[in-house]
Amino acid sequence: MSLVIVGSLAFDTIETPWGRREKIVGGSGTYCSLAASFFTRPKIVGVVGTDFPREIMAFFKRRRIDTRGIVVKRGKTFHWEGRYGRDPNQRTTIKTELNVFRGFKPRLPLACRKADIVFLANIDPDMHEHILSQVENPKLVVMDTIRLWIETKREALFRELKRVDIFFANDEEVKLLSGQTNLIKGGRKLLECGPSTIVLKKGEHGALVFGRDFVFGVLAHPSEDVVDPTGAGDCFAGGFLGYLDKVKRWSHREIRKAAVFGSVLASFAIEDFGIDRLKSLTDQEVEARFRQFKKLVAF
Amino acid sequence: MSLVIVGSLAFDTIETPWGRREKIVGGSGTYCSLAASFFTRPKIVGVVGTDFPREIMAFFKRRRIDTRGIVVKRGKTFHWEGRYGRDPNQRTTIKTELNVFRGFKPRLPLACRKADIVFLANIDPDMHEHILSQVENPKLVVMDTIRLWIETKREALFRELKRVDIFFANDEEVKLLSGQTNLIKGGRKLLECGPSTIVLKKGEHGALVFGRDFVFGVLAHPSEDVVDPTGAGDCFAGGFLGYLDKVKRWSHREIRKAAVFGSVLASFAIEDFGIDRLKSLTDQEVEARFRQFKKLVAF
Repeated sequence: MSLVIVGSLAFDTIETPWGRREKIVGGSGTYCSLAASFFTRPKIVGVVGTDFPREIMAFFKRRRIDTRGIVVKRGKTFHWEGRYGRDPNQRTTIKTELNVFRGFKPRLPLACRKADIVFLANIDPDMHEHILSQVENPKLVVMDTIRLWIETKREALFRELKRVDIFFANDEEVKLLSGQTNLIKGGRKLLECGPSTIVLKKGEHGALVFGRDFVFGVLAHPSEDVVDPTGAGDCFAGGFLGYLDKVKRWSHREIRKAAVFGSVLASFAIEDFGIDRLKSLTDQEVEARFRQFKKLVAF
Repeated sequence: MSLVIVGSLAFDTIETPWGRREKIVGGSGTYCSLAASFFTRPKIVGVVGTDFPREIMAFFKRRRIDTRGIVVKRGKTFHWEGRYGRDPNQRTTIKTELNVFRGFKPRLPLACRKADIVFLANIDPDMHEHILSQVENPKLVVMDTIRLWIETKREALFRELKRVDIFFANDEEVKLLSGQTNLIKGGRKLLECGPSTIVLKKGEHGALVFGRDFVFGVLAHPSEDVVDPTGAGDCFAGGFLGYLDKVKRWSHREIRKAAVFGSVLASFAIEDFGIDRLKSLTDQEVEARFRQFKKLVAF
């Protein structure tokens, strides 16, 4: 199997009540690939500037992430600056500098064109068509989005949803897309737009996974110290898809376990700034927390 | 065993986006006792006016609720009027008419003085002392509260918390009481104030139960149609305590199951206005939904 992740590689400047970090490495593609690398060898597709740290590229390779899809362009890497309040769900974007990301039209390397699972991690929906047309026969097309695209490219987004198998969205996005305030109703409505599975991410409240004939709920790990929530959703997707790529079966049973592994990876990511926690994370820790999730909900 | 529930019996006027009901029967004691009656024979303590419907008293008795602690006073029953928006967690109180509830100082009938479990369902914390002093040797003291008491009787509330074993609170209440925005930290801080167990109710996101050395999470039933959220928290408490009273053991294992039964009862209550759904509810439906909760989180 192979998993291709198309997303951003970025510098993030992050302020939380617990501190501030300037231009640390982030981006949806970065978080998602790192999380997936605990289960499989993901291929990442994206663009960086010449200022992107070599040691991070080396770290990707140590984690056995295929980086041949990363284009290095003369110029600066995409830069996002944001601030979180005491409530980690409240995020304010202060600055977005697209830099080399502007006008990026990914050309997939040969190794990515035979992907089984393609993850379109929060990118302009107009780009989806362009990317998917390069993949020969994807078995699972997975998409994430953000409020920006819902508000500015609604039609393109719904057009692309028709080609999507699994759609990741948070509660705000489900409400905006479906026009429903009840999340279950909203999720069901989105199931009529194409996807066979909706993964509804609810931050500290966990996630709900629905198909037409099943619902699965996973709690978030009860974290006392959320240091930096950036990338939690991307790590959820990475753990989820990495696990599915590893097991090569997408039964309800496996989708349930995938969602728990998504929640496990997200729970680690938020324990430190940027990707710092993922740098020290071990397979044993991932397994141990998976078992904690079992205990958390057992009755 | 025996469970005594001290709370309100009320008329509620409720407006939701799905309709309006004038002066239907409600109140924390009503909801909680009805929910508990699926597991045990609760004793309810409260006050009503001469306008309180006889058929509801008869219904209480049919559900084997001991109503000898209900005082009938000349005058009108407590009346609450509220409105819910599209988001069922957003509730506005329009009117509160205390009526016969004003100055109510419950005198427990003899049958209630030997209670094993005493539930103080959202009443003035100044009243707690008065009630508890009448119970000979309670094994489990359980308390719920609302924002009003946190803001107006904070000291009395913390004083009473010292005598409480299980404390029910929603996320707003935990934040207000603990001064913490992180719910897990907030819950842990409250554990230092007396209770051995905190039940953190999160509405549509379920509940977290914590003790000093354990955490259990229960999801809410994924309800597509929330008709009237009134009483959901009281039904959670009723199901929870009714089950504990029935099994007579309060191990972690039983507390977990109790929380699921709490969530089950709450999930039914919100399916119709007031107590209407509880009127038609059967033991078989309760059992069936309990099994659904198992499936919802199994992995």
